[in-house]
Amino acid sequence: MRRIEVCLSPELIHLYDLKDKIVVVVDIFRATSTMITGLANQVKSITPVADLETCRNFRNQGYIIAGERDGLPAEGFELGNSPLSYLSNAYAGKKIAITTTNGTLAIERSKNGSAEILIGAFLNLQATANYLSTQEYDVIIHCAGWKGRFNLEDSLFAGALVEALSKTHTYECDSALAMTSLYQAAKADLFSFINQASHAKRLQNHHMEADIDFCLTLDKFDIVGKLVDKQLVGKKMHREVF
Amino acid sequence: MRRIEVCLSPELIHLYDLKDKIVVVVDIFRATSTMITGLANQVKSITPVADLETCRNFRNQGYIIAGERDGLPAEGFELGNSPLSYLSNAYAGKKIAITTTNGTLAIERSKNGSAEILIGAFLNLQATANYLSTQEYDVIIHCAGWKGRFNLEDSLFAGALVEALSKTHTYECDSALAMTSLYQAAKADLFSFINQASHAKRLQNHHMEADIDFCLTLDKFDIVGKLVDKQLVGKKMHREVF
Repeated sequence: MRRIEVCLSPELIHLYDLKDKIVVVVDIFRATSTMITGLANQVKSITPVADLETCRNFRNQGYIIAGERDGLPAEGFELGNSPLSYLSNAYAGKKIAITTTNGTLAIERSKNGSAEILIGAFLNLQATANYLSTQEYDVIIHCAGWKGRFNLEDSLFAGALVEALSKTHTYECDSALAMTSLYQAAKADLFSFINQASHAKRLQNHHMEADIDFCLTLDKFDIVGKLVDKQLVGKKMHREVF
Repeated sequence: MRRIEVCLSPELIHLYDLKDKIVVVVDIFRATSTMITGLANQVKSITPVADLETCRNFRNQGYIIAGERDGLPAEGFELGNSPLSYLSNAYAGKKIAITTTNGTLAIERSKNGSAEILIGAFLNLQATANYLSTQEYDVIIHCAGWKGRFNLEDSLFAGALVEALSKTHTYECDSALAMTSLYQAAKADLFSFINQASHAKRLQNHHMEADIDFCLTLDKFDIVGKLVDKQLVGKKMHREVF
């Protein structure tokens, strides 16, 4: 059995040894859900960028720029952070540069010696699990959280992925144990449970209920998102390998 | 309603505003369980100390010194970190200086502007809740964790305390929501659930099962533990006020 660990915040990731591990970054509301949706809708690549200014500079290089801070679209950006913008292959063939409040930071902090970085979402939970089950590496699920704090939706996804990998990956990690137990208790009515979360309420205040519902949809896309060089690219699980 | 938040690790406490809050430090295995047991067994005071060397120096000032690192007693110390050592008023009237792997650090980091610092344990859960319900301050539960990481037993205690305060304290904090939900799912068989935790396994390896069982006993002591100046002192809930 390979091993799996769960890191509940980017503020804790320095406590984990990332060497020769696959790190799965998760930011359900909404960065990694949006990225997976873009990649599943034929976006060519998505480049995560740490700050708004750097992201703006990508416009001159032919990128579509997407930016969000505190749940709202950043001023002067063509796209915010809604997965719905990418549906119907709206940006097929385009290169996107994106910066978000929590997700891009978590990706940056996942590099430190890791073998691979994936992005995961409920939208591609099973595809991600299928891919990981074929790989030799141990896994760390890295929850982006909210400004360093624990959040509910990322942690529940972590629990769901631990459960999905229970035949191939074992854990001696209390956060993996806690979150898979919490997911088992909550999964019968995941929507209601996560709608109590602080960031779901924040999005509800911005009238983004459609985004919430979409981000909590299970297994809509049979695609895996992986960081290759500095770009996230997507591959269909059943047709290609990285 | 007052507010309650849960901080899952000392590595996250800098993200919380402690000003005018009561911070409840929890290190179930075993620092705060041991401290509460000592105070309930007539120990005069317990001084938490950051490191072994400073703790050793207290011996010359008439203190009994207690020390533990990585779950084992520290060399040359009169006491380790077992609550059982203090039963039957074994150290009644004595002043104790103690240093432990996680608990004393969490106490130190709880000072930053807070109104009060309490220590909590399953052993005095209801007494702690009763005291907090009479106070005007908001509450932060600060889990000591294990070397900075999330741990199961401290987080479940946090969930239990959030539940016990549900009539007087509300939350908009995902870790409070997650841990009270997990506690509700686990409390019917708390012993079995927490025995899966990494630190419970560590203690089992050291044949400390009796300590585990004792630390998971609910409401054995009707006492509240509070930091006054640099010393932890205990007060019976129904007879005295601080």
